[in-house]
Amino acid sequence: MEIERVFSRIDVQFERHLDRVRAFVRQPSISGEGVGMHEMADLLRETIVRLGGHSEVVPTPGWPVVYGGIDAGRPKTLLLYGMYDVQPVEGEEWMVPPFAGETVTLPEFGPSIVARGVYNTKGPLAGMFNVLETIQQGDGRLPVNVKFVVEGEEELGSRNLPGFIEAYRDRLAADATYFAFYNQDPHGKPVLWLGVKGIQYFEVTCRGGSWGGPRTRGVHGSNAVWVGNPAWRLVRALATMMDDEEQIQLSGFRDDIVPPSAEDEALLAALAKTFDPETHLWSWDAERFKHPEDRVALLRHYLYDPTLNIDGIWGGYTGPGMKTLLPHEVRVKMDVRLVPKMEPERVRERIRAHLARIGRGDITVHFYDGYPPAETSVTAPVVQALLRAVRSFGLEPEVWPRLAGSAPFYLFSRTLGQPFAAGGLGHGGRPHSPNEYATVEGMRLFERSFARFLYEFAA
Amino acid sequence: MEIERVFSRIDVQFERHLDRVRAFVRQPSISGEGVGMHEMADLLRETIVRLGGHSEVVPTPGWPVVYGGIDAGRPKTLLLYGMYDVQPVEGEEWMVPPFAGETVTLPEFGPSIVARGVYNTKGPLAGMFNVLETIQQGDGRLPVNVKFVVEGEEELGSRNLPGFIEAYRDRLAADATYFAFYNQDPHGKPVLWLGVKGIQYFEVTCRGGSWGGPRTRGVHGSNAVWVGNPAWRLVRALATMMDDEEQIQLSGFRDDIVPPSAEDEALLAALAKTFDPETHLWSWDAERFKHPEDRVALLRHYLYDPTLNIDGIWGGYTGPGMKTLLPHEVRVKMDVRLVPKMEPERVRERIRAHLARIGRGDITVHFYDGYPPAETSVTAPVVQALLRAVRSFGLEPEVWPRLAGSAPFYLFSRTLGQPFAAGGLGHGGRPHSPNEYATVEGMRLFERSFARFLYEFAA
Repeated sequence: MEIERVFSRIDVQFERHLDRVRAFVRQPSISGEGVGMHEMADLLRETIVRLGGHSEVVPTPGWPVVYGGIDAGRPKTLLLYGMYDVQPVEGEEWMVPPFAGETVTLPEFGPSIVARGVYNTKGPLAGMFNVLETIQQGDGRLPVNVKFVVEGEEELGSRNLPGFIEAYRDRLAADATYFAFYNQDPHGKPVLWLGVKGIQYFEVTCRGGSWGGPRTRGVHGSNAVWVGNPAWRLVRALATMMDDEEQIQLSGFRDDIVPPSAEDEALLAALAKTFDPETHLWSWDAERFKHPEDRVALLRHYLYDPTLNIDGIWGGYTGPGMKTLLPHEVRVKMDVRLVPKMEPERVRERIRAHLARIGRGDITVHFYDGYPPAETSVTAPVVQALLRAVRSFGLEPEVWPRLAGSAPFYLFSRTLGQPFAAGGLGHGGRPHSPNEYATVEGMRLFERSFARFLYEFAA
Repeated sequence: MEIERVFSRIDVQFERHLDRVRAFVRQPSISGEGVGMHEMADLLRETIVRLGGHSEVVPTPGWPVVYGGIDAGRPKTLLLYGMYDVQPVEGEEWMVPPFAGETVTLPEFGPSIVARGVYNTKGPLAGMFNVLETIQQGDGRLPVNVKFVVEGEEELGSRNLPGFIEAYRDRLAADATYFAFYNQDPHGKPVLWLGVKGIQYFEVTCRGGSWGGPRTRGVHGSNAVWVGNPAWRLVRALATMMDDEEQIQLSGFRDDIVPPSAEDEALLAALAKTFDPETHLWSWDAERFKHPEDRVALLRHYLYDPTLNIDGIWGGYTGPGMKTLLPHEVRVKMDVRLVPKMEPERVRERIRAHLARIGRGDITVHFYDGYPPAETSVTAPVVQALLRAVRSFGLEPEVWPRLAGSAPFYLFSRTLGQPFAAGGLGHGGRPHSPNEYATVEGMRLFERSFARFLYEFAA
């Protein structure tokens, strides 16, 4: 059987396959800081061309998109959407340098590569290229035609991907979109999600102005006796947005949320049987959930609650020792995760309206580009192909109606009208955190599951 | 007349006198960061020894105290208390390097030295030595005996000064204590203050724990849907401490405050006649006071209100661009300014009690060493000598019952039982801020006023 020969070749060549993962993570590509972006895009273009495909690095007003394709003369076409940017490591402490691609034997997981981006998502990206190369070396022909859209601004909210999709619309025709990811939990249970939340990221600034407070520089802290402090003003304003149980207090915020569909209800009931809350707590090193309720209630929160998160806050004197200061400016980075049918524009309106209503229109909000949630039906052929692929390893995937995380899949599902699927075997963790990792054995399993998926989708 | 000869010699030697100011500010001595402290202490000891005094650098568990004395065989003795440490400049933007001692012609003030510490308080410190040297070069004998206590931890809350005062108690006998400072406002009006507020500095930390939240590292922001965020917990807790008008909401916080004394009431009435609110607003670049009231009400706030200030706040992702993160820890630096008869220990109790009462005992508070306020009567001979000295220049000082700032004068007034006075002519500004400055002409005036004060005190 063809697939067995592919598995054998993956095993034989696996050390070289790991080298590609290492090469990808060793090339830093931090979109938020502008580090190594063009180098990484060129590396991807060369990789596609070496596979016999065509590829171009398409400029955008931000970081370029790597576009390409391999025409195998097959009836079906799969659009492989990916990202080549990673999160910054600023202020983080790592057990190994974050861009060295070092292999560490983690006590819980065994041999793993610990590096920024190895899980999110250069490991899976490299894994796909490894599989395509392996299949071609065997019989020279992929079971499906593939197209590539690998963006460099996923961590910035994919702000220039809509423009690219619009401009390249005609060239992006495909039967479905696929996004590579390691989707086994720490116990090996595979997870498959059918959608993602949307996101609206923003930065809030409170500074001295007509309300009071120093306008242009911090002043001696003793002046707090008669000069207003922007830090207090911001803290008081933020506190009106959330209650003590972390329930969002922005008026109308839940009005746009649609109740679970019949398909979602069925998935929810099935999910509750295998969902393991303790593993989730363990992965965050947290003692309890925000809402310590039963599994179904927890899952409903996860799937149907939007979030209003404080990602970071800073202002005034934050150095060592003691310095009294009345700061002139304090800032917060925040994000909202959107569930169906929330739209970014309406979220922005509600945040502006809230600040105006509490009399804090002087507090400025800079909104980054946001995007809506996206979902695919479990009945879509691409999802069914992925389910069959995972089941072929004797594993039953836990199917989640959506992920709490965000990705701009609406561009494929809504704009291009393509159903999408994401994931496969493999395990990694700590995305956006120190010591992000992916297991070596998981990488092998990912490659097998992705190869199997291609043949199932072609069938 | 002796004093006129001293003034002439100050003028003749003034360029050399400025060199001493520059030498002092060019030697960084940042107690909070441990930069240049021993070098600065040695420089002071040598300076005292060159004046014919005895001096030693006295070790403490922190930065040393420079102790010394010059016995002029006079009946009266003045204890010159000073500080040789300065605030950090981390994160500040300056027009000139902060430790270069450069002279800049400021549009508002003319030629000025712009440097960290030139106002707070190396300029006045150097000025005192210039005057002592000038008098000695004239007739070889000071009008009073002087003793020196120059500490290196004023900006850290003078945490080891009480131990030093206790250990050296017998050697510190004097008729009064004096602290050098430039006390003319931007319009040249001299100010004299009779006391200082106390201070209690502290650092508040909220991290994940039994209440929820990630305990050991930040996690992906999407988990905010079901994991608590320490930033929200801290913001909600802080918001309970202050209302929208920045009135402190800590229970019992005002119970310990004593009403104005008869002497204070008289000073307050006099002060209200010349007090210029606009100049204060201008110095902070602020549009309005926290309480936009009449002068007397403003002065009452200034003199009798304690403060609860946010000096700095930080946590989570604070770098460029967009990164979603659920932080495991958020911190705030805060300080309370104490008015009579508040005591640091009781302030600490009230803050702890507040957190316990709102069910946030998990939020930890690290208290730095605090100290109580201090005051001297306007009738004390040392204060009267300083008043006569200032008036001899044809200026009528504005007498403030106390300053909003803090200094550990209680060690002199309460522990050693010495009345104290502080200040003189001269002008500077922006302490603890970028572009701290002192005017060159003000330095000359300070030296004249300090010389005059010594003779007045001796009389």
